[in-house]
Amino acid sequence: MTLFLLPSILLVISAVHAFQFEELAHYVDSHQEEYVEALRDWVAVESDSSDVLKRPELHRMMEMTAQKLRSMGGNVQLVDIGVQELPDGQTLALPKVVTGQFGSDPNKNTVCVYGHVDVQPAKIEDGWATEPYNLTDINGNLYGRGASDNKAPVLAWMHAVEAYQALNMELPVNVKFVVEGMEETGSNGLDAMILAQRDTFFSDVDFIIISDCGWLSRRPALTYGTRGNCYFFAEVEGPKQDLHSGVYGGTVIEPMTDLIGILDTLISPSGKILVPGIREAVAPLSDEEWRMYQDIEFDINDYKSKIGVNQLMYTNKVDLLAHRWRYPTVTIHGIEGAFSAPGSKTVIPAKVIAKFSIRQVPDMEPAVVKKQVTDYLHSVFAKRKSPNTLKVTMIIGAKPWLADTKHALYEAGRTAIKKVFDMEADLIREGGTIPIARTFQDVTGKSIIMLPIGGFDDGLHSQNEKMSRYNYIEGTKLFITYLNEVAQIKKSV
Amino acid sequence: MTLFLLPSILLVISAVHAFQFEELAHYVDSHQEEYVEALRDWVAVESDSSDVLKRPELHRMMEMTAQKLRSMGGNVQLVDIGVQELPDGQTLALPKVVTGQFGSDPNKNTVCVYGHVDVQPAKIEDGWATEPYNLTDINGNLYGRGASDNKAPVLAWMHAVEAYQALNMELPVNVKFVVEGMEETGSNGLDAMILAQRDTFFSDVDFIIISDCGWLSRRPALTYGTRGNCYFFAEVEGPKQDLHSGVYGGTVIEPMTDLIGILDTLISPSGKILVPGIREAVAPLSDEEWRMYQDIEFDINDYKSKIGVNQLMYTNKVDLLAHRWRYPTVTIHGIEGAFSAPGSKTVIPAKVIAKFSIRQVPDMEPAVVKKQVTDYLHSVFAKRKSPNTLKVTMIIGAKPWLADTKHALYEAGRTAIKKVFDMEADLIREGGTIPIARTFQDVTGKSIIMLPIGGFDDGLHSQNEKMSRYNYIEGTKLFITYLNEVAQIKKSV
Repeated sequence: MTLFLLPSILLVISAVHAFQFEELAHYVDSHQEEYVEALRDWVAVESDSSDVLKRPELHRMMEMTAQKLRSMGGNVQLVDIGVQELPDGQTLALPKVVTGQFGSDPNKNTVCVYGHVDVQPAKIEDGWATEPYNLTDINGNLYGRGASDNKAPVLAWMHAVEAYQALNMELPVNVKFVVEGMEETGSNGLDAMILAQRDTFFSDVDFIIISDCGWLSRRPALTYGTRGNCYFFAEVEGPKQDLHSGVYGGTVIEPMTDLIGILDTLISPSGKILVPGIREAVAPLSDEEWRMYQDIEFDINDYKSKIGVNQLMYTNKVDLLAHRWRYPTVTIHGIEGAFSAPGSKTVIPAKVIAKFSIRQVPDMEPAVVKKQVTDYLHSVFAKRKSPNTLKVTMIIGAKPWLADTKHALYEAGRTAIKKVFDMEADLIREGGTIPIARTFQDVTGKSIIMLPIGGFDDGLHSQNEKMSRYNYIEGTKLFITYLNEVAQIKKSV
Repeated sequence: MTLFLLPSILLVISAVHAFQFEELAHYVDSHQEEYVEALRDWVAVESDSSDVLKRPELHRMMEMTAQKLRSMGGNVQLVDIGVQELPDGQTLALPKVVTGQFGSDPNKNTVCVYGHVDVQPAKIEDGWATEPYNLTDINGNLYGRGASDNKAPVLAWMHAVEAYQALNMELPVNVKFVVEGMEETGSNGLDAMILAQRDTFFSDVDFIIISDCGWLSRRPALTYGTRGNCYFFAEVEGPKQDLHSGVYGGTVIEPMTDLIGILDTLISPSGKILVPGIREAVAPLSDEEWRMYQDIEFDINDYKSKIGVNQLMYTNKVDLLAHRWRYPTVTIHGIEGAFSAPGSKTVIPAKVIAKFSIRQVPDMEPAVVKKQVTDYLHSVFAKRKSPNTLKVTMIIGAKPWLADTKHALYEAGRTAIKKVFDMEADLIREGGTIPIARTFQDVTGKSIIMLPIGGFDDGLHSQNEKMSRYNYIEGTKLFITYLNEVAQIKKSV
């Protein structure tokens, strides 16, 4: 009996454990319509974290996220992270952070998947071909705000876990989720939450996985660095209210003239940052980096035609990649308070607020950048001898992040990409900011990998953002495989 | 019988003719609630001529204007003035021009009152204390978009005619009306209409009266000049769509940087226009002007506190008035296409359109200004060696206007103001633009007067525009009196 019984038990255990890629991949393929529908439901929520009027939608989005994890049998918490102070002094409840846990086997590695379900603003008038909050499938591309950044990747991770569950295969690692709703405006409140739960929720986490980024080309990629972001408001205030430009023009120093004047001192025509001290703080490009950049698959003409420009700032691959990833840049996003509608209006705006940001790289420090920019703008403004007032505020100060590409997490990534896509992974950096990577690193001390599934042409933060069905579905398979690869990493004690 | 009959007839005729100010003034006072209600109905129409989406409201406003004149028994026409070409090449019907006529006695002078019933844009989010399209009476001030500019003055003229009618007093002059709906965006189509009707509708007009302006202080005023306006769009276009500033920043020359760069070359910090040739074209200030300006009632501290600034561009009355009225000025109104909402957005706008205007004075010419500005901006832009494209368009080119203050029309104005307000009139100019004054002068050759009833603090084009009940009602009495004064001017043959 015993002899017969033991193999039978072993067989059952073996069946639960075994990673059977073909079976999981088939499951994913045959459930892709459900996955698209789930994405449609999520995209339909206008979870724009920058618009305080959309806050109820954002709260609803967090609840939907929690509900999804609960329905999968996870141990789910909605963590209160407090309130946000608005410029006018009022406070507003921050969206709760959703945490979830699947499995707690101390013999397995534990990964923590981070994602966000808030989105950038989007209006059809901005030039969208489809309703931004109505997921629209055109030739295999799923168009909608937040589709790629970051709702589909978050769902793909959940579907990866679900696939194991549905096929009664044991998860090869314990999987935790941390999903936030303030990423697009600087992850307000998340740092404190991570710090507070460092010795509880995060104590048994071995690795952190972030899929809030995209490939560089059609070749799948692993991301090992991101730029930070210092986002500034420069407000010039003059008259107590807007004035008629005919009636008053010529007698008042106009705030808009002052603002344009100081903004024009930020950047040279060729794109150089003119704020003293910024460029000096940048770590020099090493020979090794130079060689890595040379090996990366990157077609400049593709890049140009995707963006729709005839000429870029630099003409060679290494310079271009370096200035996307590891050099700072200034962008002036726009001006609040001035006339911005179509048509004409003969107004002297009384208070104008420029929004600009500086992408930040090692070895820049947000606190230093804040002082450099504030001092510089005030000194430039003082030279104008304007009766108006200038106020400079840094509303986001997110640090850059850089990982060790030799870590086993990256080896696991290369192997998983090879298995699913039969291609070598590109090792890339990200010009954008995922501030939380740096926080995870600083607070938890855990190793982090960025494992993107977004396409190179997904239009993040832009009109017509999309996620391709291919990347969404194959990406789900990549996540499934990656969990199995990470299980092979020797557990640190 | 004959003896008895004649005096009786004469008495009747006399009763019809006689100008009885007290009776008319009493009639106006006792009907002021009706006048306010009429203004409320008109303000409720969002007749914003700059917003193509509001065009149906504008058409409705013209129809209401015509209906009002019809109800008074006028001979009314709605004149089709064709279509407007939009930047995208589409066409849109222009609001019809309303003409009306009361009386056609060849022995009387004929005045033509010009006004407009379109308005500037207004949204409560711009900082209005009340709903802009809901007329709100606060302490005798009637707040609402278009209340002062120009709906109340147009209604006041109609009520002036109505008062004569209601009291069965014959109108001392023939009164014609020309009311348009495109004034705020440059009176598109009106020039051609005036030219076309020069020998018909305008052939028997002796004088043109415009009340589309305001007083300078609490002292009633007559206006003898206006500045023109050259309104420009400067569009810089780069990438084919908005880009994520993290992902792409550092590799593309951003249109916003270029636009800020060229805008900053328009004006010096102290407000000097830097476009070559503009300042050189300005007629020098004469000694006589200087003396006139010195005599005008104008309190600099009042002006400063009304605007809410500590320091103006100039510290003495003459310089200030001269720079309001007879020197050009540049205002940058805003930028379309950039991020303009509250909050933050990390976007590189792909196409940005700056809106700025140059208030124009004798002896500047719009066609010359257009070339000066376009050439200058293109030369400045060329120095940047940007791959982006610049397009400069002058969408409004309205000429300045200057009248002879020694004309009998102004004498009549002084007398009427003395009768109604028991004050001497200020002779002032207007920094704003009433383009049609110049067209009337050039096309019809008729003399023109501007007879304002708007208050000095009405907030035209600004938040919280208002018309005081006092100015509205006393202004109606002024118009009534002015018609009688104009009747005394010897009719030209």
